[in-house]
Amino acid sequence: MSDMDERAALALVGDLVDAAGDDAAVLGETVVTIDMLHETTDFPAGTTRYTAGWRAVGASLSDVAAMGAAATGAVGVYGAPAFDPEDVEAFVRGALDVCERVDTDYVGGDLDGHDEFTVATTALGETPTPVPRDGANVGEVVAVTGALGRSAAAIEAFDAGETERANELFRFVPRVRAGVALREHASAMMDSSDGLARSLHQLAEASDAGFAVESAAIPVHDALGGDDRLARATTFGEDFELVCTLPADAVAVARDALDVPLTVVGEVTERNVTMDGEALPDRGYTHGESASR
Amino acid sequence: MSDMDERAALALVGDLVDAAGDDAAVLGETVVTIDMLHETTDFPAGTTRYTAGWRAVGASLSDVAAMGAAATGAVGVYGAPAFDPEDVEAFVRGALDVCERVDTDYVGGDLDGHDEFTVATTALGETPTPVPRDGANVGEVVAVTGALGRSAAAIEAFDAGETERANELFRFVPRVRAGVALREHASAMMDSSDGLARSLHQLAEASDAGFAVESAAIPVHDALGGDDRLARATTFGEDFELVCTLPADAVAVARDALDVPLTVVGEVTERNVTMDGEALPDRGYTHGESASR
Repeated sequence: MSDMDERAALALVGDLVDAAGDDAAVLGETVVTIDMLHETTDFPAGTTRYTAGWRAVGASLSDVAAMGAAATGAVGVYGAPAFDPEDVEAFVRGALDVCERVDTDYVGGDLDGHDEFTVATTALGETPTPVPRDGANVGEVVAVTGALGRSAAAIEAFDAGETERANELFRFVPRVRAGVALREHASAMMDSSDGLARSLHQLAEASDAGFAVESAAIPVHDALGGDDRLARATTFGEDFELVCTLPADAVAVARDALDVPLTVVGEVTERNVTMDGEALPDRGYTHGESASR
Repeated sequence: MSDMDERAALALVGDLVDAAGDDAAVLGETVVTIDMLHETTDFPAGTTRYTAGWRAVGASLSDVAAMGAAATGAVGVYGAPAFDPEDVEAFVRGALDVCERVDTDYVGGDLDGHDEFTVATTALGETPTPVPRDGANVGEVVAVTGALGRSAAAIEAFDAGETERANELFRFVPRVRAGVALREHASAMMDSSDGLARSLHQLAEASDAGFAVESAAIPVHDALGGDDRLARATTFGEDFELVCTLPADAVAVARDALDVPLTVVGEVTERNVTMDGEALPDRGYTHGESASR
């Protein structure tokens, strides 16, 4: 048989595993997620081990946030060809610090001798009512936290040799507090790790609905420049903001409860995903590919 | 700074992370563990993807067992250069099947494009009273579940081209039920994934005690042959049996509650780890090395 792309393979896993298909798996009131990041696809040259620890654990915490769960802990594996004490310590400090930023604990890890620098992370959370991907209702609005394009800007900075700035941009704060605050309002939610366009398509497919978004409303990160900044902010992904649907009359209350901006970018429709009335391609950053960079 | 070996690096992580230093991290009544296995060090040529899924998830379930916890779920990441549908399905089926064997669920996973076949797994468990590594008391006995050397025998079978038999030996049943049954009796416990010798040293160091074991008592797996079978059973590791200490008068009751043999191999002493009265070196299989094979 021929190989599948990552999305087709994930669909296959979903057929085999009842509980698969959301940002994190649900076990009672516990949510759990696991991620693997590695040098060639996730950590550009210049990424510090501190940033790698922060970002890898942050990616898992973002999955917890996307379920509307409060984070309860995280663990990780540091895989590298050798264990330089400064590198290991920097990685763990990054992991500890990102956990502290969302009021949870990094409680341990393991090491693995590995040719390529490779990190695996798990985060746990608790919520009585996980927010699914399939709950969007026609007539609701769709909103995003923060601003999109921060990671795209980080990649630009790495490419330009602005390593310190790039690392800072790479160390995002997972939207755990926002996720908990949105839990009682959001009908569907996921994170934007594959880009807004792809997130919209995934929410639409899961909810059997569509979206009509307005490009002028999309919050683009200040750090991202260039004529095509909107396109890159929409498709690049790796931003770990939350994308959610909620009733229009809940937006004001939700905003008051959030520690980050919440921007309405469009509404839930019967079908199709459009931007400014034109079809928005289901295209974005696919982990393991570099084509979208 | 020069690189550290894996154990020194783990000690460093332990200094930085309060909760580190046991088979799994404890968060309230939840235990959580994460492991990373990969082709060059963990899956000899001939290992099927079904066996890889079973064994990787099984290794994490073994960590849960070593805490005396009932397993509550597992997740994994399948990292490979390409996603062959048969391979992905076989891996997931292996993960599902090992979970079924210990009455828990494989609830999801992710995929990662990765040059080397690499698997990350997390298992969760619940226990009101996790069994630590540091609770061994002088005068208690030390016991092991099952028999040691099964993975060493598997490697022999892989080397001999007996692939089917090797895969079967590689698919161990994690001692989750035994761990729960031992919870109320064991003062200290861990799994034998680094080999009995190393496990004894780790329990001794954590408990500030020693062990005197008798080689004649060590249960060696039937599948392991050769003149040095005892030595290999003691040091090879990767067996995922449980090594625990408990009062001598609790052994009979514990045995009645177990679904696997429990063999007393020695006793807890004030200091030093000995076998037949001679020092037992702190030597075993170190993940990522192949020297001990």
